Amino acid sequence: MTLIQAEDMEAIALGAAVYGTGGGGDPYLGKLLAQNTIRAHGPVRLITLDALENQDLIVPVALVGAPTVMLEKLPEIDPLVLALRRLETRLGRRAKALVSIEVGGLNSVIPFSVASLTGLPLLDGDTLGRAFPELQMSLCTLAGIGACPMALADEKGNALTVDAVDNRSAERFVRSITMDMGGASYAALYAMTATQARQALLPGTIRMTQRCGQAVFDARARLGNPVSALLQATGGQCLFEGKVMDVQRRTDGRFNRGVAQLQGLDQHQGGTLEVLFQNEFLLARTPQQVLCSTPDLIVAVDLETAEPITGEQMRYGLRVAMLGIACAPAWRTPQALDLAGPRHFGYDIDYRPLGSPSSNQAAGPTARGAP
Amino acid sequence: MTLIQAEDMEAIALGAAVYGTGGGGDPYLGKLLAQNTIRAHGPVRLITLDALENQDLIVPVALVGAPTVMLEKLPEIDPLVLALRRLETRLGRRAKALVSIEVGGLNSVIPFSVASLTGLPLLDGDTLGRAFPELQMSLCTLAGIGACPMALADEKGNALTVDAVDNRSAERFVRSITMDMGGASYAALYAMTATQARQALLPGTIRMTQRCGQAVFDARARLGNPVSALLQATGGQCLFEGKVMDVQRRTDGRFNRGVAQLQGLDQHQGGTLEVLFQNEFLLARTPQQVLCSTPDLIVAVDLETAEPITGEQMRYGLRVAMLGIACAPAWRTPQALDLAGPRHFGYDIDYRPLGSPSSNQAAGPTARGAP
Repeated sequence: MTLIQAEDMEAIALGAAVYGTGGGGDPYLGKLLAQNTIRAHGPVRLITLDALENQDLIVPVALVGAPTVMLEKLPEIDPLVLALRRLETRLGRRAKALVSIEVGGLNSVIPFSVASLTGLPLLDGDTLGRAFPELQMSLCTLAGIGACPMALADEKGNALTVDAVDNRSAERFVRSITMDMGGASYAALYAMTATQARQALLPGTIRMTQRCGQAVFDARARLGNPVSALLQATGGQCLFEGKVMDVQRRTDGRFNRGVAQLQGLDQHQGGTLEVLFQNEFLLARTPQQVLCSTPDLIVAVDLETAEPITGEQMRYGLRVAMLGIACAPAWRTPQALDLAGPRHFGYDIDYRPLGSPSSNQAAGPTARGAP
Repeated sequence: MTLIQAEDMEAIALGAAVYGTGGGGDPYLGKLLAQNTIRAHGPVRLITLDALENQDLIVPVALVGAPTVMLEKLPEIDPLVLALRRLETRLGRRAKALVSIEVGGLNSVIPFSVASLTGLPLLDGDTLGRAFPELQMSLCTLAGIGACPMALADEKGNALTVDAVDNRSAERFVRSITMDMGGASYAALYAMTATQARQALLPGTIRMTQRCGQAVFDARARLGNPVSALLQATGGQCLFEGKVMDVQRRTDGRFNRGVAQLQGLDQHQGGTLEVLFQNEFLLARTPQQVLCSTPDLIVAVDLETAEPITGEQMRYGLRVAMLGIACAPAWRTPQALDLAGPRHFGYDIDYRPLGSPSSNQAAGPTARGAP
């Protein structure tokens, strides 16, 4: 068991932004919420699955909505606790631990506030190892763990419970309800026993984000190369270095969709890179080849500081390094690729694992659902 | 206590169509469902409030959605029972009786199926005395009875519970969820104790619809004038007799909205009548004056048979009598008129009770929200 103090949230939030792959919501506001809560209610106990009994109940709590909306609706803690308590009531039992549904973005830090306030421990792990835009895109779905029963709440005090017949149906209901809640909602979902968590959870991913963030801070402090430090900490590779030339984006209320055009710096002889996103960066390709695609992670960071850049922060003139990080192996099965591979998002290419010789395939025609 | 047999449903359904004022869904399919269920599971015990203890729980069950959708999605009984049971679970107690939320339209007959299947008695009464298109438009709202907690279900097995902060918010959530459920959903809502029901319920309205339907049947059988019989049974007055010349309608998925133009028969010297509807007929006016408006009841029946005609059945060439029936006095308070008066629907007129000398005011400018 490790105690997470307010200052530890800095590195965790930076790492969370890296694993958010441009989406998942900026962890910044969630970090402030967690820090304030920890200062008022004490540190968060970060535990491993070994600390739980097989039948103990673990509940992920999360924000749902388009990241642009979440920038304008500040996250609050009361609706998270309301969602948690409603789900507990629905299940007739209390949670023994909380967990982050996704280690990337805002939702990796959101549960810290609830853990500090309620005194519940937080599991070191998550159910994605990254961020994804739709709630059925979790290793829980592949492990047969239902997103429902689910509780949703908002800051006005509205609360709903959802018992959908499957996780994709749940996603549909949740998006509509979230729109009625003003574009962002608070959820408790994917409740699971410790036994189930042993199948679905990626262990150690919170500490992973912390190490990742710390590596960047250390490199900055010693005036080293933060991008190199980040690559070393994550085992990632640099896909491209360039300047953002153009960003097209649209928010349909549910997702931020868009495409960013990058112009390579000198050492790339002026090549170009196109990065497509639906909340998260999902596909990076040159005119000749796909460099990286979902479910592998595509990360944009500032070329000098390695500060992660979200999809909504991408803008003309930013000098960025685009990084690729291999996804968790569980995302590379045929079932997982059905759930979150390129074709699910409308990109007409086969998935090639990052770094495999055959990953440099020719880019297919422009995506069906892409802008 | 009265036993309602399958054959009794004929008169009840006709009366329900009258009090449905053109909306509320055609009771025809609900009648067939009730008759089949009663034949398989036995008659429905129709009781009065006197038969219940003060703290006994009464639960209305209802269909939600646009009537045109309900014509294509046949009503089923399992999702109604699912909604009822989920609400009971949410409340931690069982219903002692069912009740119709509205005595007009499909929802006046829907609870008969559930009553027959579950063996629960049905209260003789309802919470509107007519039909209205939005769920907060109930005398329950005026009596301070919450629509929530509410359970919604669909025929696929999806179930949601809604705890909204007020009845108008509940309406908003329910419409979105209903769209996700395919345009029609099954609800258990406005759970109340017998004590609360004594304030909010209009007693005897089921038997009222039965008498109304029976009066029409009797007049037809004796070759009398069914429209006169209907007027006598309901205490209504004839507003206009004419031929439907034009109907404009649109369904936005939530409501059927439209306007019907009628040409008077000879005895009216060729006058015209305009009838505006949002599911229900809400406003009847000549070029000179408003003849009747919500919350008073506007009913269209066939001129010869007195068969009620719904908004979606209105079409060129029908010869109809437009009738006005005074609403329950509880709908005429300022609070009630805020909830369901002409201005709520976007008609820029003051409400004048049907039959009052001043009811024949000049018609205002065309409605804001009307087609």
